[in-house]
Amino acid sequence: MRSIHRPAPPLMSRRGFLASSLACASVGLVSGRAQAAAIPEAVRSMTAATQPPLFPSSGPDYRPVVTLNGWSLPFRMAGDWKEFHLVAEPVEREIAPGMKARLWGYNGQSPGPTIEAVEGEKLRIFVTNKLPEHTAIHWHGMLLPAGMDGVGGVTQSHIPPGRTFVYEFQLKESGTFMYHPHSDEMVQMAMGMMGMFIVHPRNPHERHADRDYAFMMSAYRFEPGTYMPRVSEMTDFNIWSWNSRVFPGIDPIVARIGERLRIRMANLTMTNHPIHAHGHHFSVTGTDGGWIQEMARIPESTTDVPVGVTRAIEFDAAYPGDWPIHCHKSHHTMNAMGHDLQNFIGVKADARLAKAIRKLAPGYMPMGATGMADMSAMKMPLPQNTLPMMTGEGAFGPAEMGGMFSLIKIREDLAANDYRDPGRYRHPPGTVAHDAEAAPIDVAPAQDATPAAPHGGHEHHH
Amino acid sequence: MRSIHRPAPPLMSRRGFLASSLACASVGLVSGRAQAAAIPEAVRSMTAATQPPLFPSSGPDYRPVVTLNGWSLPFRMAGDWKEFHLVAEPVEREIAPGMKARLWGYNGQSPGPTIEAVEGEKLRIFVTNKLPEHTAIHWHGMLLPAGMDGVGGVTQSHIPPGRTFVYEFQLKESGTFMYHPHSDEMVQMAMGMMGMFIVHPRNPHERHADRDYAFMMSAYRFEPGTYMPRVSEMTDFNIWSWNSRVFPGIDPIVARIGERLRIRMANLTMTNHPIHAHGHHFSVTGTDGGWIQEMARIPESTTDVPVGVTRAIEFDAAYPGDWPIHCHKSHHTMNAMGHDLQNFIGVKADARLAKAIRKLAPGYMPMGATGMADMSAMKMPLPQNTLPMMTGEGAFGPAEMGGMFSLIKIREDLAANDYRDPGRYRHPPGTVAHDAEAAPIDVAPAQDATPAAPHGGHEHHH
Amino acid sequence: MRSIHRPAPPLMSRRGFLASSLACASVGLVSGRAQAAAIPEAVRSMTAATQPPLFPSSGPDYRPVVTLNGWSLPFRMAGDWKEFHLVAEPVEREIAPGMKARLWGYNGQSPGPTIEAVEGEKLRIFVTNKLPEHTAIHWHGMLLPAGMDGVGGVTQSHIPPGRTFVYEFQLKESGTFMYHPHSDEMVQMAMGMMGMFIVHPRNPHERHADRDYAFMMSAYRFEPGTYMPRVSEMTDFNIWSWNSRVFPGIDPIVARIGERLRIRMANLTMTNHPIHAHGHHFSVTGTDGGWIQEMARIPESTTDVPVGVTRAIEFDAAYPGDWPIHCHKSHHTMNAMGHDLQNFIGVKADARLAKAIRKLAPGYMPMGATGMADMSAMKMPLPQNTLPMMTGEGAFGPAEMGGMFSLIKIREDLAANDYRDPGRYRHPPGTVAHDAEAAPIDVAPAQDATPAAPHGGHEHHH
Repeated sequence: MRSIHRPAPPLMSRRGFLASSLACASVGLVSGRAQAAAIPEAVRSMTAATQPPLFPSSGPDYRPVVTLNGWSLPFRMAGDWKEFHLVAEPVEREIAPGMKARLWGYNGQSPGPTIEAVEGEKLRIFVTNKLPEHTAIHWHGMLLPAGMDGVGGVTQSHIPPGRTFVYEFQLKESGTFMYHPHSDEMVQMAMGMMGMFIVHPRNPHERHADRDYAFMMSAYRFEPGTYMPRVSEMTDFNIWSWNSRVFPGIDPIVARIGERLRIRMANLTMTNHPIHAHGHHFSVTGTDGGWIQEMARIPESTTDVPVGVTRAIEFDAAYPGDWPIHCHKSHHTMNAMGHDLQNFIGVKADARLAKAIRKLAPGYMPMGATGMADMSAMKMPLPQNTLPMMTGEGAFGPAEMGGMFSLIKIREDLAANDYRDPGRYRHPPGTVAHDAEAAPIDVAPAQDATPAAPHGGHEHHH
Repeated sequence: MRSIHRPAPPLMSRRGFLASSLACASVGLVSGRAQAAAIPEAVRSMTAATQPPLFPSSGPDYRPVVTLNGWSLPFRMAGDWKEFHLVAEPVEREIAPGMKARLWGYNGQSPGPTIEAVEGEKLRIFVTNKLPEHTAIHWHGMLLPAGMDGVGGVTQSHIPPGRTFVYEFQLKESGTFMYHPHSDEMVQMAMGMMGMFIVHPRNPHERHADRDYAFMMSAYRFEPGTYMPRVSEMTDFNIWSWNSRVFPGIDPIVARIGERLRIRMANLTMTNHPIHAHGHHFSVTGTDGGWIQEMARIPESTTDVPVGVTRAIEFDAAYPGDWPIHCHKSHHTMNAMGHDLQNFIGVKADARLAKAIRKLAPGYMPMGATGMADMSAMKMPLPQNTLPMMTGEGAFGPAEMGGMFSLIKIREDLAANDYRDPGRYRHPPGTVAHDAEAAPIDVAPAQDATPAAPHGGHEHHH
Repeated sequence: MRSIHRPAPPLMSRRGFLASSLACASVGLVSGRAQAAAIPEAVRSMTAATQPPLFPSSGPDYRPVVTLNGWSLPFRMAGDWKEFHLVAEPVEREIAPGMKARLWGYNGQSPGPTIEAVEGEKLRIFVTNKLPEHTAIHWHGMLLPAGMDGVGGVTQSHIPPGRTFVYEFQLKESGTFMYHPHSDEMVQMAMGMMGMFIVHPRNPHERHADRDYAFMMSAYRFEPGTYMPRVSEMTDFNIWSWNSRVFPGIDPIVARIGERLRIRMANLTMTNHPIHAHGHHFSVTGTDGGWIQEMARIPESTTDVPVGVTRAIEFDAAYPGDWPIHCHKSHHTMNAMGHDLQNFIGVKADARLAKAIRKLAPGYMPMGATGMADMSAMKMPLPQNTLPMMTGEGAFGPAEMGGMFSLIKIREDLAANDYRDPGRYRHPPGTVAHDAEAAPIDVAPAQDATPAAPHGGHEHHH
């Protein structure tokens, strides 16, 4: 199994894979088993960095998606079959700098890599089970033969540990789908097993978007200081993630003024996520059942994404800025916190009072008396492997966010296919809210973010 | 009060009722009260088996619905009034084989029977209260005189225990509605009081569907081993049901290739239920406010059904198979479970370790160390009247499901109006996901399900 | 800062403000600071009574909204800028008669006043922070310069306590928007900081509605007997409010037969609220992203309002009556209750039994044995500042409601712009559900409600 390691430029590694595996499919594949020639190599990723789009170098053409803090799975053509290889396995996922989780996922990460293919194509997907229990993969939203539907026990045998199963079906319709287990389903999804499945239109000019992003939503309950989620949790999660990442660990979405921007989201948590985009109105154009006709579209600035669905939203990037996009349930933009916090608003930070309160509320610290914003500013001692509750630094101070939060960065001057973080937005003079009794301050941010290394190399795309 | 007992063929019993009660309405009704002649007999059901559709033998024609694990209420015509008689009363409901619940319902079951009538008809509904407290029935979604709206205290007096009230209104619009109490509402709905109310179009060719199914969604919190739900529960339910039934106690939905299939759902739990159908894309065509125009319909494979709404979904049955349909919140396809389970994934089932863990987590059993699928395979001792958490047997092994889960069984060769379970789907050769390193196995299920007895006799339908 | 006190007729006070402040803007404003002339006076409200619509006496014309148990913020014109002044501050809000809460809000109340303006207008909004911690205001759904988006730390500096910031932007589109903090967001919204922001079409004949109501939805967790909500609560709220009011403290919505009625709702709780209107079908016509085209509208009787969105619903008032409108999650139409109540249905109110049960369930009172309706009838001792769980008196007895519940009162004979409570509906003879064995009772309510004093004076509206 080949791995994508962080130190190596992943695009190159991936392109290397594509070059070698696609060009040399008939000779290059290694396996210890007799039928090895039939099973393509499984590529793994060792990084949580967003990978550049994977332009197809064989098979029909399409404009690939960018998976936020994720990647697309390389494929090979075997005649007119497009072949993928997923490996279900325990993984270590960095939730954000400062917190790692031991999850189950696919090909080295949770969620698994995005699968991209084209309407009409014939797919052969190999699934190897390296988990300690059986599994099966349901291709959510796909029209396919009943025996390929991936419902363990019902439409197929569960895949035992150590075995590789093969799924074959032809893609009837384009759209935004997903894959996830349908064996011990609650546990395996609570452990992070899921991925996006994008089917592009046969005509690459249909459903055009200049940039096309994708991410899964998943939720976890971690006891403070631990590494593995509580899989029986149903309502009281404390890590609300996009692609098993939380703010400030989620990369920005980037677009140039005038571009058509599509963002595809899928929800495999236990509750609805109302996704709010600042600065633009958008429409939902697609679901896990296909595309929405123009007449049926409605304008929104927040769209409620229910559990077990996908939503593609689209809009024309019209206004420059760093525009938040986030779940609007406010505790979903916080990281792990105690739920038993008392409200001490109005209580003076007085030592004697604190002592008295502590008798009633053990563990009380004389903070929170004026709200919780001071928690963001102050450095509290935290258990190991635990993220602060409200965090992130903006151009103007603490962002006081966490969880399902990122920025859509819209700029005048991006090159096509440049997906690198363009740094902080420079506001035109006179356009920033300011103290009414002081001269307007047009803040030039002290320091631009340095574009992350893995985003280089996009000039190689066709 | 006449009862429908399981041993007797229910269709016959119902047809018998229709024949006798409708033909002999003026002479045959028995009651101990003076005004008895005015109140029609109340029919009760003693079974949780799905009853065949109740084709009208008087009044305007329509294509009746099939209520999953339920039935439609017989009526009589009194001049141009269609008369129904609901009895609110304590009932015993089998949630699934192995678990009975003491609920409140109507006419012997929870939920109550489906009411079916036709646009333009004049309805007279008698409601007898055999509960220990007052009640009232709200006809949810109906356009009617304010005094017939059924809001206890607000639009009418509450119906005292032991009394019969009468509601009269004309049906202005066809659609998918429901009925439920509007007196001590939270308690009475938490106890299972609710039912579907279907108004068919005046023109039976409008809104055509070849098969038309209906069910209510309700949720309960049972302490293990008990028979009565906790009525003050708001968020932490452990029985998520369709018509107060859970998998594997929910009958399949059946259709023939090429038929138009409609499924009507109503949600009276406390949370949204995203209903996912495998194998087909569908559109929502109706709500509790009426029908959705073609232009406004969107394709879906999962539709979020909010609380206090109805949804009719429709699609053309195109692909044969046993296609799961279920709520996509994964803990809603589990039955009652402890919520405090620790995650022991990775912990070896070692006796000394188990002992050590038991000190920290009393009650720990050396299982779950590889996920929870072993819970489905193993036979755990359970409290009385408690269902296993993950259960059901598919053609290929354990289904590991519960709660809001059933199958849509689509076949080439069903007779019209044959609603019997056709048994397990026989996959064509080469269409089942299989071990990549073994010869493809085209599994011929070992044993077909035997069609349940109550489904016989559908050849009698006109 | 001028205040609106309850004893004074608020309309007059407001019109007085409008007259004085708008006519005398250049001379009449008082401030202790040097730049005072630039900052308009901040008007406060001291009442939770619904204020009549605030017809504009300067600037472009529009048909104003009525905020349920709220008010609209007066403005002044400064050249072609419309100026508002919001003050973030601790407030005392009456949740309903018998319960007061110490919240954070704007200009004396929680939620803050509704802001109304017109498409194309240039707005200058001053925001003074009188809270003990920093804040910032996000103008949810607005298209504006990134620096005016109000995201503390990200698009602007947080507003420190004691300072006044100024926001300036032009209104690009009409619609139903809102404002709320984007600093220490979870805490500040959990404390009640939010308000509606209505942008009317430039052409006052577009999007016509004869009556246009608006309210915010917010939720709180109060420990019994306390005055301040627990701000870290995420799922287990016990006060579900419209404009920080609960039934029976929520005023009715009033319309005349034949009028077009619009109701605008916004949700800043942590969960969806399915809003059900009795007696009419409606369509959602607007969201926080703008207006929905006719073709895309669907009929509903219940619409699910997700978190972080707004919904405008519309229908033609066609049927007279007192029609409930409420959230359909049944525990959202209850007030604070214990969640640990056991189910004693069927347990006789027997002294010996009660004693035995009390050993198992301390605090058990021999009630609830027949449901909970008796709790509404009986007067239980309650902690101070705590509302009964199920309350309200209808024309026919106890309504057994609380929380998110009100009535839409539709009448034949209202004057245009008469927003006063018309009292209880008088049902025509023979239109009320009644005991089948007694003569039909056409109940003439014993006593009409007296229209609340603050609604007088609507004949002054232009």
